Amino acid sequence: MNRRSFIKNSGLVAGAITLASIPENKLFSNPKKFNMKATHKLQLSFVPYTLQLKHAFTLSTSSRTTTPVVLVKIAYDNYCGYGEASMPPYLGESHESVLKLLSQLNLSQFNDPFLSDDIMDYVNNTMPGNYAAKAAVDIALNDLTGKIIGLPLHKIWGLNPAKTPVTSFTIGIDTPEVVRLKVKEAEPYQLLKVKLGRNTDREMIETIRSATQKPMCVDINQGWTDRQKALDEIFWLKEKGIVFIEQPMHKNNYDDTAWLTQHSPLPIIADEAFQTNSDVAKLKGVYNAINIKLMKCGGLTPALKIAHEVRNAGMKVMIGCMTETSCAVSAAAQLSPLVDWADLDGNLLISNDPFDGMKIVDGKITLPNKAGIGVVPLKQKTDIAKFLK
Amino acid sequence: MNRRSFIKNSGLVAGAITLASIPENKLFSNPKKFNMKATHKLQLSFVPYTLQLKHAFTLSTSSRTTTPVVLVKIAYDNYCGYGEASMPPYLGESHESVLKLLSQLNLSQFNDPFLSDDIMDYVNNTMPGNYAAKAAVDIALNDLTGKIIGLPLHKIWGLNPAKTPVTSFTIGIDTPEVVRLKVKEAEPYQLLKVKLGRNTDREMIETIRSATQKPMCVDINQGWTDRQKALDEIFWLKEKGIVFIEQPMHKNNYDDTAWLTQHSPLPIIADEAFQTNSDVAKLKGVYNAINIKLMKCGGLTPALKIAHEVRNAGMKVMIGCMTETSCAVSAAAQLSPLVDWADLDGNLLISNDPFDGMKIVDGKITLPNKAGIGVVPLKQKTDIAKFLK
Repeated sequence: MNRRSFIKNSGLVAGAITLASIPENKLFSNPKKFNMKATHKLQLSFVPYTLQLKHAFTLSTSSRTTTPVVLVKIAYDNYCGYGEASMPPYLGESHESVLKLLSQLNLSQFNDPFLSDDIMDYVNNTMPGNYAAKAAVDIALNDLTGKIIGLPLHKIWGLNPAKTPVTSFTIGIDTPEVVRLKVKEAEPYQLLKVKLGRNTDREMIETIRSATQKPMCVDINQGWTDRQKALDEIFWLKEKGIVFIEQPMHKNNYDDTAWLTQHSPLPIIADEAFQTNSDVAKLKGVYNAINIKLMKCGGLTPALKIAHEVRNAGMKVMIGCMTETSCAVSAAAQLSPLVDWADLDGNLLISNDPFDGMKIVDGKITLPNKAGIGVVPLKQKTDIAKFLK
Repeated sequence: MNRRSFIKNSGLVAGAITLASIPENKLFSNPKKFNMKATHKLQLSFVPYTLQLKHAFTLSTSSRTTTPVVLVKIAYDNYCGYGEASMPPYLGESHESVLKLLSQLNLSQFNDPFLSDDIMDYVNNTMPGNYAAKAAVDIALNDLTGKIIGLPLHKIWGLNPAKTPVTSFTIGIDTPEVVRLKVKEAEPYQLLKVKLGRNTDREMIETIRSATQKPMCVDINQGWTDRQKALDEIFWLKEKGIVFIEQPMHKNNYDDTAWLTQHSPLPIIADEAFQTNSDVAKLKGVYNAINIKLMKCGGLTPALKIAHEVRNAGMKVMIGCMTETSCAVSAAAQLSPLVDWADLDGNLLISNDPFDGMKIVDGKITLPNKAGIGVVPLKQKTDIAKFLK
């Protein structure tokens, strides 16, 4: 029996089954979704954009006031999915590299957005690396299919939106006066985050503690070099109400980090040490948890697989972000019911977010009741708003 | 801002965005799907059933003519999802054990089938083990949500139905005359499978080879005990056109199996050695591939995670089945575009299949263009057909 006659025959069998309680249109559903019209093709468009940070973003090694991003649309029929690549300079991607990859893609060869496995294979094989550019396409494709299905992604994935965690909110390094102002600004958040790894670390913690006793976590960004000093510092931090330590030592320093994790009274989380799924196995036994970021692993689809794999390896899962618009942050938030900790404040740190999406309510990630990643472009008289229309 | 006022407000923002090319109903879709009515609850029902095998099923250690299964329905609103537990006796589950677990479940506490992560956490925590019983619930829940969404599961998962593999078809051990008849019966299949591990192995292969030169794979079911003899046998089998070897030695014999895999000219696949996701890491370096079965790992959701994890560990993926109706086989088939090899002939080996589902067309798995797992109950005047209505 060939495929055509099989489909016809099974259709006949289906037609013969009359279930009193189940209207046939509910059993076999919307034929439009099944048979994407060959005349519709995926249309990719993209535009570079520069995020303005509310406060200078200071790491142990650098400081900056903008972040380059590229915003992406994939249109299909009357639907439109949004995506974003964010390129903090230390990760090696840029407007140029992302636009170069996206320009090489010919998504109009695909006429069914649900063939996402094939589409992302094609995108991922275009060139190695370039994870932020690939994440932008993956996010837009997930948003598009979520909108066609008509459900938020977390719902399609079977996740409970009531189980989202609180997000941490980063207090930048600054003078004691400004730090106290920032703590005030952080009033709505239940977990603060501080970037340490300088010789003013204890001062910074004491300044914050003079203003609030809220739980805090710290991100060392590979800033510590001596494991015994690092351990002493962690014991001191624990006394100060710190709840976990992110990336204490250099990402390639496995031995000292494993020793630190073994002796630390606080969980030790991998950030720079983790890029994508091939790293999970080698971080087992070295860290207690892994911070997954869409821009590093290439989007939502890989992030979902990695989250399950990290959990299965006995580690905890954190979801993080770069400075990003509400587009990429809302995408990451769709995964957040799965994670132990979230650091999804990237959109809160910028002053020119062109999207409305996930919100933080009483410090907790709150997922919009909208299809796909759950964002809508803000109605503004700007070039970026015109592009997003 | 509390949750209620946030949702109200973001609704206002959404309303303010008017995208000329995107009708609002497409952007924000079917509100019915978003807000499951609290008055609807999941309703679980189930019934024991005994599969009649067309031919006695002979392993290296036993022979039987029936397989006990339990068929499951989860009803919600006007939708109905189907599931199945199959209990070959050597795995330790039975009608009694499956009915016992299912009787303890109170799914009516859930009023949203999309909270599948919560629902399956509840089911999985009811008692340890009992993977076939848990698989039945997981399959029915996936079928149900797929039907509500209105798409086949493979489409929701982003898989290309054109990429399904051929399935192997098992030729049972028998007299040369009967074997030649079975080879004729296997005419539509492109890959034959033979269960070996007896002292008549070479005779069996020669008998089949006297009737056909089709590619074959062999399943030893732990029947070999001497690794050097096993290797000699594999070289002989390779000459006879065998393409891979399943479970050559005892499932706990890691050292000899790793040696065999290292020296074998054919891929060595884990079957009995693999139960569920916690086994993936320890089978790396011991086998070339893993045979995932829904009844062993607890259903489609765990199988999907395991398939990605096996692939990420550098191994190949096979999907297998028990003797099952078209219900569980069609569920497994939804995953098959992801795998390297498939052994999904369980429904072909029984004479009282109450479902119509996936078909083998020219030896290749062919997925029905229907929502969920893609099965419909056959219209028959039997008790089981009445239950499935």
